Formats: sequence, structure tokens, C-alpha cells
Amino acid sequence: MDAVWECQAVPQPSEPAGTGSATTAGAAHRLAPGAARQHTVRDHNLGLVLGKVVDAPTPVSRADIAAATGLTRSTVSSLVEVLVAADLVAEVGPERRAGGGAGRPGIGLVASRRRVAGLGLELNVDYVAACVLDLAGEVRHRTVVPRDLRGTSPARAVAGLARMAVSAVDAAEAEGLTVAGAAVALPGLVHAPDGMLRLAPNLGWRDVDVLGLLSREPSLEAMAVRGALVVDNEANLAALGELDDARGRAEVEGSRYTFLYVSGEIGVGAGIVIDGSIFRGGHGWGGEIGHLPVDPDGPPCRCGSRGCLEQYAGREAVLRAAELSSLPELVEAATDGRERVLGALTDAGRALGIAVASVVNVVDVSTVVLGGLYAELAEWLVPAVEAEIGGRVLAQAWAPVTIRVCSLGGDAAILGAAGSVVRSVVQQPAYLLRA
Amino acid sequence: MDAVWECQAVPQPSEPAGTGSATTAGAAHRLAPGAARQHTVRDHNLGLVLGKVVDAPTPVSRADIAAATGLTRSTVSSLVEVLVAADLVAEVGPERRAGGGAGRPGIGLVASRRRVAGLGLELNVDYVAACVLDLAGEVRHRTVVPRDLRGTSPARAVAGLARMAVSAVDAAEAEGLTVAGAAVALPGLVHAPDGMLRLAPNLGWRDVDVLGLLSREPSLEAMAVRGALVVDNEANLAALGELDDARGRAEVEGSRYTFLYVSGEIGVGAGIVIDGSIFRGGHGWGGEIGHLPVDPDGPPCRCGSRGCLEQYAGREAVLRAAELSSLPELVEAATDGRERVLGALTDAGRALGIAVASVVNVVDVSTVVLGGLYAELAEWLVPAVEAEIGGRVLAQAWAPVTIRVCSLGGDAAILGAAGSVVRSVVQQPAYLLRA
Repeated sequence: MDAVWECQAVPQPSEPAGTGSATTAGAAHRLAPGAARQHTVRDHNLGLVLGKVVDAPTPVSRADIAAATGLTRSTVSSLVEVLVAADLVAEVGPERRAGGGAGRPGIGLVASRRRVAGLGLELNVDYVAACVLDLAGEVRHRTVVPRDLRGTSPARAVAGLARMAVSAVDAAEAEGLTVAGAAVALPGLVHAPDGMLRLAPNLGWRDVDVLGLLSREPSLEAMAVRGALVVDNEANLAALGELDDARGRAEVEGSRYTFLYVSGEIGVGAGIVIDGSIFRGGHGWGGEIGHLPVDPDGPPCRCGSRGCLEQYAGREAVLRAAELSSLPELVEAATDGRERVLGALTDAGRALGIAVASVVNVVDVSTVVLGGLYAELAEWLVPAVEAEIGGRVLAQAWAPVTIRVCSLGGDAAILGAAGSVVRSVVQQPAYLLRA
Repeated sequence: MDAVWECQAVPQPSEPAGTGSATTAGAAHRLAPGAARQHTVRDHNLGLVLGKVVDAPTPVSRADIAAATGLTRSTVSSLVEVLVAADLVAEVGPERRAGGGAGRPGIGLVASRRRVAGLGLELNVDYVAACVLDLAGEVRHRTVVPRDLRGTSPARAVAGLARMAVSAVDAAEAEGLTVAGAAVALPGLVHAPDGMLRLAPNLGWRDVDVLGLLSREPSLEAMAVRGALVVDNEANLAALGELDDARGRAEVEGSRYTFLYVSGEIGVGAGIVIDGSIFRGGHGWGGEIGHLPVDPDGPPCRCGSRGCLEQYAGREAVLRAAELSSLPELVEAATDGRERVLGALTDAGRALGIAVASVVNVVDVSTVVLGGLYAELAEWLVPAVEAEIGGRVLAQAWAPVTIRVCSLGGDAAILGAAGSVVRSVVQQPAYLLRA
């Protein structure tokens, strides 16, 4: 049950520059001093109502929203009117309410697919990708282009992604959609505040100003200026994709999803989600599972260290061990039961399991979601992964680890990226309405 | 600058059981519905004022507190009166204010050492310990008893700790102090909600009801009944000890301390602190650095796995490699430069560095604090630890890892435990005043 509060700032007689940390009131209130108050409460409630509509698996009525938020019916009606007028919410029905309980059938409310969309972008070691997601979570546009960027300069590679982004925005606008913003998935250490890709070991890139390079396209620069163009680690965004997907499957109650998402491509990364939020550590550079040592004296890694997981379970390492050159070949040979290939996959699974068990022992999660390459190879990897987890996870007897396979394939990161934009619109629709 | 707000619940016409999560107002306000409001705001502000007094390195005036909290001077005076009457705050001075700035000298306020204290307890593999800390953070009582518990039943071992706790409470009461509560440090996976020690590999214990066993002592049972007797992992509590110590040295600004505390004893554990709070993961079982594999095919570990850090850098492993039988001998031999001993310490440092680098890559912290055994051996361990971190931490060029040595010795966990009790009194003095 949501509570509704009216809060009012009490002007202080003197407010010298102090050093104390604020604990008297929630941060949300501190953002709304003095005269802005009325406005901010309404903005907040607009987001609350839109969220109830967007997150519901079936159409909801105004009465449902009033019950779920604790807002009065007249307040809900007035907010819904604004959202319908802005074409963020659409009316359907009348339909019978879920459960067929008491109360006459009402007009149903759903997320409108006509007004606004989020753009997800990905620049990875050997492909670039984009997708546009509308407010109902439907994919309206998707492009994935294989392109090995290991010999390409960062400026050239990012320029290619920028052109793909502009095409995606054009495609969305042709359908009448406004692209509210974009999130960019990158394969390495990302410093979000200044839009820099600090390190991408498999590309050999350091300190690349991705946000600056993207902003050479005027339409992306406009997004960047209003703070609507952000960069993040690809595994983090893929983890958000998995989170959205689990919400859509109604497998997660609200924010109660804690898991480790492991993204296997040429590089191997992870996103750690605790109670529905990405755990970012001190600088946002956590989750680097690909560089945990499987054998500290093992083969050299592109990161400069030795024996990292990527050298055992990254795509190229697995293909090399299987003496094959592509993923489809690998899947076919494994399906045919070729011994060398099955052995290579067991070894990769064992390495993956050792690293996953380490992460589980450090961050204490009980669900591991395999994504990217690992989703396609799950059938052959999982037994070895489970064996290592069973032997190495200290809490296994009390919190047994479940392994799941991500169903989003290679699209997890672009879906998570686009979804993060859509979610920010849902949380603050007022920004869009005033633009 | 703290803002002060007056908040008022708006009663809702109908509030059916809803499923939405509360986002309209801060959680603190939701705890204070309807008529309780006036009471709760005052309770909260009492804690705010007491915190300013306790955390200040030198005496503060009522005017200082008003400036730092944003409360009016008359409100501060009235709250201080309550705290002085309860003997939680004592008056000293008059003294000149720090910096010698404008304003007449005022009466200084300090934490009173006469009224209340926290009890810290530890049951570890080969010792039990207790300490009593007063509101000013001074140790008023301390007992450490070496006792190898590996052959002792859990019931007998915990009964010994309970007697030690009762003696500590008696000693505190003899000085006129009320022991507000106790926190118990345990070497393994702790399930705080039901007071269970799930697993202590080095003791061979599983599912021990520590809270229940402690509660056989009536005075501890009384504490348990009012929720003032809690259990936690020893590395987590030692990390809190380091946090308090860093605050005391004025090295941390407010909550801005992010670090990995590594506790080396017979077992090896870690506490992860992000922005001043313990990171607990899904169930509170994170930080198990002692069971990260240094070599997946290495020697068997008491946890059932192979090649865990404890088998390379736990106290017994280091002594075995050095062919010595006690820590003082080890320190002496290392100081004398005995080659075998220096080699054993370098190997242990390398193993520790490999595991620490893994944790840093997963949770992204840039400060590593060595505690327990590792503090005493830091001189010989740190070069190898640094070499591994330098080679293995992906973000090292942008967020170089600093290694610090904890100055609390073996007392870190009992100090952190007692300090956590004191901090809960400071946050909610009203609980104590109403008792």
C-alpha cells in the first residue's frame, strides 16, 4: 500500500554552510523546496500512475490505480487525463476486471505505443547493434551488424554506431515516435559521468570519449546536452534486459530479483543485480568476472594478467579448444556428440563454474543467469558449472544456486539499454511533457 | 546543510491492501503515521543531536548543532536538555570554539561516559573475547581468552561465551553503565534474523542456534527478547570496527568510506563496505574471500572444496610453510630475515593478492584494509599482495588500490560489535529513554 504524504519545508532562520548529512527527510523531499512543491508532488504522482499502467500485464482501470497507489480517485482521474492527452496512456475496453470480481466493467488503460520510445545501442568487439523499444516494451526497430572492430580506430568505430543510432531515430520518427534518449552498451570499464570507455581489453582501447564521439552527430549531441544519452557496461545493461524480461514474465515481484548475469561473448562480463538494482561498487567497475583467475599461472590474457576466465571460456578460447571457427559449427558438432567438442565445452564449463562460484561466495546471490554465447551452449556447459558450484559455494546447502538461461540471446544488452530509457520516462513523464 | 521538514500524513478515504511499493515518501516517514507523528519527529531529532555530539572530535556548542542540523536554537536547547538529564550528554567548558571565530565562548557538549555502553562479543576458532565500549567510544572492559574450540561442542563453547558476556555486563554495571545490547562476531555464515550460525568450516559446526544458546543466561535472554542481542559474521563486524576507527581518525568524511576489510586468522574472511555500509548480498553471506580458489586443483579445504585461499594464507597454512608453530615465532624469524620464512610469507602474500584482486574486480573497491594476522605480517606480505593487484586489477590505472593496515589488531571485531550497539543507541536514544 503506497502512502501519500503532503510535505512542507519549514524555512530556517539561518542556514550557514554546514557539513552534516541530511537525515531529517527523504532525499525526494529535499529536491522539492519551497514554491516548487505543488509541481513536484504532481510530477511524482504522474510517474506513479504511469508506472502502474505500464507494469500491469493486462489493462487496468482508474479504480485499480487508486487502490494500488492510495491516491484518491479524483486525483487519479485528473492524472490519467494528462497522460491520455499526452498519448502516453491509451484507453481500451470496456473490459471486465481481472478476477471478475465486484464492480462494473471500466475503461481499461494501457501504455500507448504511439508517442515515445527508448533507443538501445551496443558497440561490442565484433558487432554493433541498435533497437527501439516503445512504452509497451515492444521492439519497433532492430539492427545488428557483425563488424570486427579490433582493427578499427575508436573514432571510426563509434562513428559507425552513431550512424546506426541516427537511422534508428529516423525509423522511430517515421512511425510518429519521439526517442526520449539512448543508452549505449560497451564491452569494458565505463565511466558513466563523463561518458568515457576507460578500458576495453579485447579492443585494445583505453580512455575513449564515446559520448563525445557520438555527439558529433547533431541529433545525438542534442540528446547528450539534455542528459539523455548515457553509456554503461554491456553486462550491466544485459542484466537490466534480463530483469525487464523477468518482470514481463511476472516471475519477479516488484524489485525482488537478485541475480548474477554472466555475459559470454569474445569477452566475458557480469552484471550483479541486488533487489532489482545493479550493484556498481565504488566506481561502477564491478562484475569483471572475465578476469578472475582460473589458474593464476595460466595463459596470458589481453588485460595483461594470466589465466583469466576469458582465456578458458571466452568465445575464441572455446572455439580454439574445439578446433572450430564459428559458433554455429560448435553447436552442430556438440549436437552431433563429437568428443573433442564436448570435452572443450566441459572444460569451459568447469572454468566458468570456478569463476561463478567465486563471485557467488563474494556477493552472495543464488540465481545465475547465463547470457550471450553461454545461453546457446547451456546444454553442454551447465553440468560442469553446476558441479563446480556444488563443490565450491559455501552457502550452497542453505541457499542452493539456480542456473537459468537468458532467453534474449545476443539482444539482452540493447533491450536492457532501451528499456532503461523507457523506465526513466515512466518514472519522470513530466520531463517529456514539458519538453 | 540538513534541511528540516514538517511532514503530515494525509488520511486516505480508502486503503485496501495493495501491492504497490511505497515511493511517495521516505521510509522514515512511513514509520510515523497519524498520531505518532509529533513523537517520532522529536525522537528522530534527539538522535540527530546526539549524533552531532558523539561524532564531533572536540566539544560542540548548542549553536554548532543548530548550524549543522538546521534545527532552531530553541529546539536544540530543548533536546540537549533531555539528553543531559538522561546523562547521555555531558557539559564541559566554557571553551573557545574551534577556529577561534566570532561568537562568545559557549558551554561545550560531549558524549557522557557515565550512562550507557555497548557489548561486543566474539567466538572465534581459537579464542573468545568481549569488550564494553561507552558512548564516547572508550573501552571500559576487555577480555580475550585463548581457547581452541575445535574439539568443543557448540553448546559448551557458546556457554563459555555467555559467561564471559555476563561478567562483562557485571563489570559495566559496577561502573554505573547500562549495557544497551550486544553484538556477537562469529567465524562463518551467519543468519542474523534467527541468530543461527549456519556454517563455520574451521570449527566443523553447522546450524548452531547461537542466539538460543546465549539466551540460556537470563540477562542475555532479556536482551534477545528486546532485539538487542544480534549475531553477525566476524569480518563484517571487524570492518565496522575499522570504519569507526577511521571516523575517529577523521579520515572519513561522513559515510564516504568504501573498502574491503580482510580478516586473517585460522580462517580468512572479508567485509565489504560501500559508502559506509556493509554490503551483504542476498542473504548476508558475502565476502567469503577465504574460499576463493588460488589453485582450483590445490590442497583440500575444510569447506569441502580444493585450493581455497585459507589453504595458502590462513594462519596454520603459513605456519606450516614456515615450519614454525606460533605467530610470535613467525614474526621473530621474519624480522631475522630467515629465508624459508620470508619465502613462506611471499607465497602467502601472493595467494592473498590473487584473491584480493578477484574481489576488487568483482566489487570495485580501491582501499583494502589488512586485519588480524595480516596486520602483524603486513611488512612481509604487502609487496607480494601489491604485485598481484598491480597485474590483475582491471581498473588499477584509473582507481589504484591502496593497501592499509588495520591498527585494531585482534580486537577489530569486538570493537566493531560494541560500536554497532553504541551507534544504534545514538540513532535512537528514545528507545533507551523510554526503557
